[in-house]
Amino acid sequence: MLSWLNGALVADPRLDPADRGFTLGDGLFETIRLAGGRPCHLARHLARLAAGCHVLDLPLPYDGATLAAAMAGLARAQDLDAGVLRLTLSRGPGPRGLLPPATPHPTLLLTLAPPAPPPGPARLVIATVTRRNEHSPLARIKSLNYLDNLLARQEAARRGADDALLLNGQGRAADSAIATLLVRLDGRIVTPPVADGALPGIARALALEAGLVEEAPLTPADLARADAAVLANSLGVRAVVSLDDRPLAPCDALVRALATRLLTEPA
Amino acid sequence: MLSWLNGALVADPRLDPADRGFTLGDGLFETIRLAGGRPCHLARHLARLAAGCHVLDLPLPYDGATLAAAMAGLARAQDLDAGVLRLTLSRGPGPRGLLPPATPHPTLLLTLAPPAPPPGPARLVIATVTRRNEHSPLARIKSLNYLDNLLARQEAARRGADDALLLNGQGRAADSAIATLLVRLDGRIVTPPVADGALPGIARALALEAGLVEEAPLTPADLARADAAVLANSLGVRAVVSLDDRPLAPCDALVRALATRLLTEPA
Repeated sequence: MLSWLNGALVADPRLDPADRGFTLGDGLFETIRLAGGRPCHLARHLARLAAGCHVLDLPLPYDGATLAAAMAGLARAQDLDAGVLRLTLSRGPGPRGLLPPATPHPTLLLTLAPPAPPPGPARLVIATVTRRNEHSPLARIKSLNYLDNLLARQEAARRGADDALLLNGQGRAADSAIATLLVRLDGRIVTPPVADGALPGIARALALEAGLVEEAPLTPADLARADAAVLANSLGVRAVVSLDDRPLAPCDALVRALATRLLTEPA
Repeated sequence: MLSWLNGALVADPRLDPADRGFTLGDGLFETIRLAGGRPCHLARHLARLAAGCHVLDLPLPYDGATLAAAMAGLARAQDLDAGVLRLTLSRGPGPRGLLPPATPHPTLLLTLAPPAPPPGPARLVIATVTRRNEHSPLARIKSLNYLDNLLARQEAARRGADDALLLNGQGRAADSAIATLLVRLDGRIVTPPVADGALPGIARALALEAGLVEEAPLTPADLARADAAVLANSLGVRAVVSLDDRPLAPCDALVRALATRLLTEPA
């Protein structure tokens, strides 16, 4: 697949299997909506990427302008005006051993997929197979270590659901395998705090800044009382129709308000 | 580097960057000592790999005899009688999205590095930057999600130490970034239980079966009272000379007994 790899468009990119992204999950990624030929909320995505680089002590080898131009170029080359960009940054190849090379040669890969169809309302279950580790900095960055999310998503599939909510070690809600959770509780719209293991998502930040939602810890008892819920990530917003098979109320106004924020670039 | 990739020796292997090992850390690995041209404790490594495959619902595309022959062939091709084998199994390439393809084409890569020099005694610190997630099945398998271990190892380096002990979410010891911890406490040799987030390591199992160590939860208060400690993994055994800068006593007899178990294949 045509990709942008380390500075150039490449028709059929290949990786060194000694890449620490492959051997240790040593890297980060961002999933970015492409609309009108341009990446949406790119500054926010790059700020989160930079925060991840700081946590991992991983150099980011390109500046924002270069990455923006690379994304636009990839879109033109694929003749796509809309779609889903993925930026993957790994520490690059390294010899055996856990400590990174003193002078890493990071891998930066950009790929672009056609737009995904809107996912529709979600049946959500509370994952029982694993938990979010709120004690790890990894909960606050978008790293390549995505297996807890996969385990939760696989459990959702086994249970006939579309997504799974991860609780943290203390049993409080963090987020779903792929999205921020917002719930309506006693008439308030709330979302779990980052301290409880919620990924500081782009859609989440936009909703908070717009005053559409406030942060509050959510226990399973709270979840059992919530009467509506929404899942949001950079690619879109979907209503939750049931939580552990308990039907929830529609919340079209919130879905629309969130979608508007997500789709509208700040001036 | 000459490797065995999906059934064949390859001089300069390359990976599809859509490999889910790279994009999501969706896979497993084993680090296996090669001695006398043969992989040590291979049956145990393959049993742990199979347990990991079960957790991730990931097919293992080769049987043990094939993998043993591949390892021996790789050793002959590299003209190495001793060294460090690494088996990496990923789910292989997949399209965008978290759920795996219904019919994955896993990637199985074998590499062989020359023997590492014996690491010598270790200064160990207790990691403060992250914790082991004892609520996740990933704590009990050797997955490609290794960033918590890397964060701990980076902290050790910053603090002038050689390895870092990870505590779990409840603040009890799990294991180090790369090895099982054994400590001498009130004259007993103990190691953290798997339920506390200790990886079920090969060296750990050999030590338990030989009656050299027993399982016991270890709090920071216990660690502060321990008078000796050892780190052990499939590649070797090393004494811990200090824990958070507190000097520990030598424990040569234990180191020797563990090393003997590790170096001796069962009949």
